[in-house]
Amino acid sequence: MAHIDLPPGLAGPQGPMTLRPEAAAAISAMAEVLLRGPSSLSMAEREMIGTYVSSQNDCRYCQTVHGAVAAHYLGGDEELVRSVKRDFHRAGVSEKLKTLLSIAGKVQQGGKFVTAEDVALARSEGATDLEIHDTVLIAAEFCMMNRYVDGLAAWTPEGDDFYRERAAALAERGYMGSLVR
Amino acid sequence: MAHIDLPPGLAGPQGPMTLRPEAAAAISAMAEVLLRGPSSLSMAEREMIGTYVSSQNDCRYCQTVHGAVAAHYLGGDEELVRSVKRDFHRAGVSEKLKTLLSIAGKVQQGGKFVTAEDVALARSEGATDLEIHDTVLIAAEFCMMNRYVDGLAAWTPEGDDFYRERAAALAERGYMGSLVR
Repeated sequence: MAHIDLPPGLAGPQGPMTLRPEAAAAISAMAEVLLRGPSSLSMAEREMIGTYVSSQNDCRYCQTVHGAVAAHYLGGDEELVRSVKRDFHRAGVSEKLKTLLSIAGKVQQGGKFVTAEDVALARSEGATDLEIHDTVLIAAEFCMMNRYVDGLAAWTPEGDDFYRERAAALAERGYMGSLVR
Repeated sequence: MAHIDLPPGLAGPQGPMTLRPEAAAAISAMAEVLLRGPSSLSMAEREMIGTYVSSQNDCRYCQTVHGAVAAHYLGGDEELVRSVKRDFHRAGVSEKLKTLLSIAGKVQQGGKFVTAEDVALARSEGATDLEIHDTVLIAAEFCMMNRYVDGLAAWTPEGDDFYRERAAALAERGYMGSLVR
């Protein structure tokens, strides 16, 4: 049961977001630009960064729905997403993405855990300053959303089907559309 | 030195925010509505919640500038802000705010640390569901911003004068105005 009175039937942050529509609009706009806006990182890569951070934060709602969005973009490859959460060093993703996931994991622990060496390693694999910036901000954004969802004990549905359907809707309509779900 | 190339002379998140103007607009809008929008929590109370979370995250920029904003609203009472960071249980703030600071401190550790008992205690001191919601979201937002600033090693000026001046500007113009600083 959620810690506060929330409208029924809305999963994850959707319930709490009804309480502050203006904040919700800003949250959705941030997700849209960071996860789906123009970027040299693919949408699947950005969703995997968010999924990995959410798994490190043990947020079941966020890691499941964003993992499903990533898998959707990857043509349904749920196993790749699971392997990123389990041990990204051994996952079938690019070396560049591995260095960015490493930075994201440091951000999850706290901003000061990111070292100049982490950043140099990402650069040596071809990461640009903007990609490093976006990785840090996406990881930080998920640290916010994971806390928003679990800090209020928001509704986290059981089963995978809910998340696959929600992911398909998010992939099609984006995060701004999620406001009017 | 910052981890990535940032425009000089912009402190805290202001430098990184120039790299993604659309994300920056959303970040500023979120701060404006949560920290300065209509609320039964005073602006000083909300800034103290953010300051406390930032101090727990050891983010010097955020705890100093938001502590200065809180003190500005409190007529210059910097000692009260320091006492909240040091041990809010013994600070000269309301019992209700103490229970909300306790929830914020749990959110800083992770969303799942917040318990039904923490929320019941806040309610017993008169906190509303919306105040509890806003406390969780403000704490989560600062967990994002602290990581954004320190994860990129953004410029953190020395000395108190910079922060007092910046706080006065933020108190006067708000967080949307901070975009065009």
